[in-house]
Amino acid sequence: MADFSQISLDPAANTPIYKQLADGIRSLVDSGTIQSGEKLPATRELAGLLGLNRTTVSAAYAVLEQSRILEGHVGRGTFIAARTSAANTNGGESTLDWESILPPLENATTASSKIGITFASSRPAQRSFPLAEFRQLTKDVIDSAEATQILQLGSSHGYLPLRRFLFERASAAGIARASDDLIITNGCQQALDLLARLFFSENRAGNSGVVLEDPVYHGLIRVFSRAGANIISIPLDASGLDPALLEETLQQYRPRLLVVTPSFQNPTGATLPIDRRKRIVELAQRYSVVLVENDIYSELRYQGPHLPTLKELDESSNTILLRSYSKVSFPGLRVGWVIAPQPLIARMAEAKQLSDLHSDQLSQAVLLRFAQSGELLRHLERTRAAGSDLLTCVLDACARFLPTGSRFTRPTGGMSLWVELPAPLLAESLLRRATERGVDFLPGRYFSARRPHARGFRLSFGGLTPDEIVRGLKILGEAAQAELATLTQSAPLEPVAALV
Amino acid sequence: MADFSQISLDPAANTPIYKQLADGIRSLVDSGTIQSGEKLPATRELAGLLGLNRTTVSAAYAVLEQSRILEGHVGRGTFIAARTSAANTNGGESTLDWESILPPLENATTASSKIGITFASSRPAQRSFPLAEFRQLTKDVIDSAEATQILQLGSSHGYLPLRRFLFERASAAGIARASDDLIITNGCQQALDLLARLFFSENRAGNSGVVLEDPVYHGLIRVFSRAGANIISIPLDASGLDPALLEETLQQYRPRLLVVTPSFQNPTGATLPIDRRKRIVELAQRYSVVLVENDIYSELRYQGPHLPTLKELDESSNTILLRSYSKVSFPGLRVGWVIAPQPLIARMAEAKQLSDLHSDQLSQAVLLRFAQSGELLRHLERTRAAGSDLLTCVLDACARFLPTGSRFTRPTGGMSLWVELPAPLLAESLLRRATERGVDFLPGRYFSARRPHARGFRLSFGGLTPDEIVRGLKILGEAAQAELATLTQSAPLEPVAALV
Repeated sequence: MADFSQISLDPAANTPIYKQLADGIRSLVDSGTIQSGEKLPATRELAGLLGLNRTTVSAAYAVLEQSRILEGHVGRGTFIAARTSAANTNGGESTLDWESILPPLENATTASSKIGITFASSRPAQRSFPLAEFRQLTKDVIDSAEATQILQLGSSHGYLPLRRFLFERASAAGIARASDDLIITNGCQQALDLLARLFFSENRAGNSGVVLEDPVYHGLIRVFSRAGANIISIPLDASGLDPALLEETLQQYRPRLLVVTPSFQNPTGATLPIDRRKRIVELAQRYSVVLVENDIYSELRYQGPHLPTLKELDESSNTILLRSYSKVSFPGLRVGWVIAPQPLIARMAEAKQLSDLHSDQLSQAVLLRFAQSGELLRHLERTRAAGSDLLTCVLDACARFLPTGSRFTRPTGGMSLWVELPAPLLAESLLRRATERGVDFLPGRYFSARRPHARGFRLSFGGLTPDEIVRGLKILGEAAQAELATLTQSAPLEPVAALV
Repeated sequence: MADFSQISLDPAANTPIYKQLADGIRSLVDSGTIQSGEKLPATRELAGLLGLNRTTVSAAYAVLEQSRILEGHVGRGTFIAARTSAANTNGGESTLDWESILPPLENATTASSKIGITFASSRPAQRSFPLAEFRQLTKDVIDSAEATQILQLGSSHGYLPLRRFLFERASAAGIARASDDLIITNGCQQALDLLARLFFSENRAGNSGVVLEDPVYHGLIRVFSRAGANIISIPLDASGLDPALLEETLQQYRPRLLVVTPSFQNPTGATLPIDRRKRIVELAQRYSVVLVENDIYSELRYQGPHLPTLKELDESSNTILLRSYSKVSFPGLRVGWVIAPQPLIARMAEAKQLSDLHSDQLSQAVLLRFAQSGELLRHLERTRAAGSDLLTCVLDACARFLPTGSRFTRPTGGMSLWVELPAPLLAESLLRRATERGVDFLPGRYFSARRPHARGFRLSFGGLTPDEIVRGLKILGEAAQAELATLTQSAPLEPVAALV
């Protein structure tokens, strides 16, 4: 058996231990120390060997299985998979060995065709798209005189009529200040990418730290780690980010950026109450940290009062506000925007020009018409009414079907909530059993800034019907019972430390 | 006067000397060694002081003027500009000083409203857009059942029906192989950006060199320099990249990537003949360099026979083909694509997911319909007929109006040609005079991979009428005569070394 003790694990490093372990095993495979087909020690055995919690080893194995480096065979154990790409025979004139010159793939997931009910996707229900209105408004746009302008090369700042409309509305609402500017991006993801580039990959001088919520949207973690940022994470409670923990973190790390999703955070659904919002804005000012407000869900509030954005509360100009039409209208049309001080927007426009010149103008013009006509507001009202019913339904079904001892968040809007399974259940094992029964979800490791969240998972309900939610949760409950039965039969339980 | 001799200039470095000089002056300003309002030595004086050619100093000043670090006052000289953003008074609770925490802006250009005829923009003529067809096809798309699919969250690989269509067509044409795959990008710019990330900023191990043509499209240089690539440049001749120079370069630098625009290169308009194409493909194979083929203009051929792509000629699988609908249809709809071996496309899709999830689907569906219906082909035929007339017109007008001793390329397609002015004329000075007369163009430094191209400029004619071309070139000729008269009156000419 390979000498796993040579894998160096540093509990003080910012990379979580399970990722360090996965990287270490990957290196042993790459170097040929472990060969294809070789069997790996059981998670319990390796955990004992390395002095780790078994959930950490499970999380590392899950990552490697996902990357197709390991293969699990039920009842036989875990093995090093055969290489997917055969090495090239390099003769005189060579064909490039693409697998060897490129970084490894991260997400080798393949969607299963067996899935009938998916809690995995945080997107709106297709059936509720206002198709007739969309068709009419698009026709109005393309029949108008502005069609020529839309089809010609545009500005990196965005389609001017939309940019003006959004800025004027934000000014009237007290969100945008005279010293601010606005840029259109391809959804919120591109805004995050441009910011990660500006503050980290292209601007390496000085501090490289970014503070993220944990758990948090996978694409947010990855975009900052890709840019070389040093990820610092803060665990969330039921009301989101705790200002006391934040202050400790800011004192200790003096990070450059802080990214917060104040309303209906993905994946927990948590919303920051007003006192926390004010306190976070104050702390960002006191510690001179740039505050990035990821505000793409706030219009999907089903209960309770409207809360001001961090940008509104920020008397200084430290806050960068990110918004998007994707979650509240049509995700296939990629239109988001950023409101921030002029010097920042100027840099973002320059970075965007190099990234893709400018955003697609047809969708910008159509969404402008959608907003101006009042149809977006009517659509939002319908979405909120339907969302409120779905939320009630999913909370009831969670209480009814999830195994005893489960904890789950109680959001007041958005599309997702977060479940923590009771020990010894693991989200990955539950997912395997659920998938066999036609139901899936995203397990905790997708949302892991630092902690593995091996017992946590996200339930996204925004695209489902009440009936699907009930049936899906019933199946999850049955899968959990089946898994529990196997676990308690097969082995005595080891005590497990709390994860959050 | 500040001590300019402390600026370190390294002729062996990959950064061109004029850029090194500009950076050096910028540092003197940033450090306060030179203050706002201070006058800089005349270009001739500083050139003498530093042992440089005067055109090098002019190019450096032009860069700094563009960045608003310097201000020129006619008849008085060149001065350090006042800071655009006042420094913040940092009290206890601070407002961020955005200018100081962000990298400097590069392109502080503002379009002049005085410009009547612009040779600056390489884009198709708005008047020739097939608006009626576009309107009808868009209506067909949005009225179809696929509208729902278009509006829902899509794939990072692109809209499947378009992806299939493009891949099948490329397969039938012998361009795509069974081992290839295809990804849709937001135009060609995003494809370049994703490649620069994969091969350089996110994959720093090993060789960091990229070979570029010189002069070359500004957005191509910047996307690779932003990614931290080591830019290696090869000067072009009338037939584009010379394989003999390429072989020397590959031997000397062993770069990772080679980017070639084989047809109607931007800015020179040069097209590689078939023997050069074959030789370049062979060299890429021999030296195991990844060949990126920027093929966005090849359908705009006005004269001469069709030539095969490098991808077709490449029997191995070293070539990455970049194509786009932007130059041949509607630039405002951002749809390009990449055909390359499957392992590369998989990585690009992963990178794209982090960059902006996926490309806008409405435009993808509309452009698919445009291509499938045959309207794109009809539009291309009309564009080629019109382009042929424009090309004849611009070549005639160049011969007639440009000052004696000017050299210009003679492309057989595309949208641009390249002019080299005779000494002592400089493109920047000509541009200033032309702008006063309502005509503009992009001077050589925009296309500078390494050489300053101080006498070169790009003439883009694709968006103009024959009448505008003739009037514009007549004005350029007059501006050049006026500049010549001033130059020969004001000072004896110094001998100038050839630039290309």
